[in-house]
Amino acid sequence: MPGARMAAEMAEQPAVLARLIARADAIAAAVRELAPQPLHGSTIVARGSSDHASVYGRYLLELASGRPVSLAAPSLHLLYDAQVDYTGQLAVAVSQSGATPEIVATLARLGAAGARTLAITNDGASALASGADGVVALAAGAELAVPATKTVTAQLLAFGLIARALGPVPFSDEELHALPAAVAAVLEDPEPARAAAALLADDTRMVVTARGLLYGAALESALKLQETAAIAADGSSSADLRHGPITIVEAGFPVLALSAGDGPAAADVAELTGLLRERGARVLTLATAAGADLPLPAVTEGLAPIVAVVRAQQLAFELALLRGRDPDAPANLSKVTAT
Amino acid sequence: MPGARMAAEMAEQPAVLARLIARADAIAAAVRELAPQPLHGSTIVARGSSDHASVYGRYLLELASGRPVSLAAPSLHLLYDAQVDYTGQLAVAVSQSGATPEIVATLARLGAAGARTLAITNDGASALASGADGVVALAAGAELAVPATKTVTAQLLAFGLIARALGPVPFSDEELHALPAAVAAVLEDPEPARAAAALLADDTRMVVTARGLLYGAALESALKLQETAAIAADGSSSADLRHGPITIVEAGFPVLALSAGDGPAAADVAELTGLLRERGARVLTLATAAGADLPLPAVTEGLAPIVAVVRAQQLAFELALLRGRDPDAPANLSKVTAT
Repeated sequence: MPGARMAAEMAEQPAVLARLIARADAIAAAVRELAPQPLHGSTIVARGSSDHASVYGRYLLELASGRPVSLAAPSLHLLYDAQVDYTGQLAVAVSQSGATPEIVATLARLGAAGARTLAITNDGASALASGADGVVALAAGAELAVPATKTVTAQLLAFGLIARALGPVPFSDEELHALPAAVAAVLEDPEPARAAAALLADDTRMVVTARGLLYGAALESALKLQETAAIAADGSSSADLRHGPITIVEAGFPVLALSAGDGPAAADVAELTGLLRERGARVLTLATAAGADLPLPAVTEGLAPIVAVVRAQQLAFELALLRGRDPDAPANLSKVTAT
Repeated sequence: MPGARMAAEMAEQPAVLARLIARADAIAAAVRELAPQPLHGSTIVARGSSDHASVYGRYLLELASGRPVSLAAPSLHLLYDAQVDYTGQLAVAVSQSGATPEIVATLARLGAAGARTLAITNDGASALASGADGVVALAAGAELAVPATKTVTAQLLAFGLIARALGPVPFSDEELHALPAAVAAVLEDPEPARAAAALLADDTRMVVTARGLLYGAALESALKLQETAAIAADGSSSADLRHGPITIVEAGFPVLALSAGDGPAAADVAELTGLLRERGARVLTLATAAGADLPLPAVTEGLAPIVAVVRAQQLAFELALLRGRDPDAPANLSKVTAT
């Protein structure tokens, strides 16, 4: 059956997340043991879906550690042989398989340059894990569908747990423990995703937007829609969108807008969607707010990216089926990418 | 005449660049005086076109300074009140107008958190310049067309000059002095851009790709095509493209691929374009290589982004005219963006 694997893997997410949360204190102890003292900053190494989890991780790590966080440019290290001193840095590499050669090689370079290295991967015996000073093994089980689902939400949560080890995070332990139930609630309610997919059935392009903590979730939602449903979805922060890409949003253009709660990021997104609606854009909201097209259960903004990504997986899945595409095996893609 | 302002501002680029190059040693002295000793890292603050110049700047600053470089997430500072210690950091903010409130406020926050602050702006009397510890004033003259052209190439060059002050850069002083003539050669030869525009006349979307030092130029080229010619151009590194977005590249899909010289980044782009051609994509090359659709004069990879951006401006300009759009005043955009 088309999409059987992706559906099964999406359904495992509450259990995968609950297992990781059960290990939260052990992970915190390991991260505190590993991180340089004093910590000068953190650097994150990733590509693709893992890179979107990293955007969320970048916000959380900077908030928690109180030191600048950078997303590494692998080509600096692998193509240009940059000589960079990473002393005092925590380098975190993220790869579902732990086998992407570019990520393995970049983390090794940062380690050799002085960083303490931490791997987030689904395979604790992978090359990435073996070469790192420490590992957060996601233990999500094998992921066979090409679009990553349960490993992405596990990566997002892993960043939450690493940040929690380093300092204050924008969620409480109580909210953390309520996360698997919120994800389950989304999975048990596919009807809004089916209805939204029907509205996008004939579109060839769209924009997915958010701000702040949900920005990484917007990027990941766009990628999931691209690779699963073959729609040219462009992920953009609501701030960047105003700086040029907004030009392509004309009457009838579809926009998916993510927000949670009623903080300043949600207000910024609401202001932008108001502007877009005035221009005749078709705005679909994916939000905790009442009346959202793709509703989220009440969840704090700091953990909302994880629940929002699950909603977007559901939308991508339904849209692919509607278009006669097999979500498990998109054209032109393989599971591990060598670059 | 439609596009008269943009055309005039594009034509000023060789002179603007030459004036900045004449100040190279004075800028180097000011940057060395300003940068923290020891330098722990650098952080760049920007949005829109300035953010694409910053991607190039990020590569150059990390190569030159030998310390990690981060692109700031303004929402961390302005929406979430992150408490981050920026001691030992050089913070560089980039804004054409120097008036974008978000950029001004973020740089002020980083300065208050311990960073030494440097502004790259066209207006040396702007709020951004007044609030910074140092300024690289672009002195490009007023820019009236909405799509930024001469100020973007001046920003790219400013990063080259700042990096040159901090350590080794991937270009020589001789190559630097030859840059304005290379830009002039592109401007004097608009025919390839006209021919390429004709090939894209009816397209609604495309991908612009590059790797490494030219990656920021690919992002900027995509934005220029979006805002000037209203084509949904998606900028992507050739490495990221393989991780999912490649799915949307089907038979007939237009791809613009940027490269320079015959180093490892050019080889990576060539490998990807081979793969895309096998799938029937329509690949246009913007390169120093012989036979490129949009040829560049012989210029070293380290400075090629500046020349490549000028070629892409030319393409966006010609495509807008062909589509009956006024390049000077794209729908929905204003020159200074408040976020």
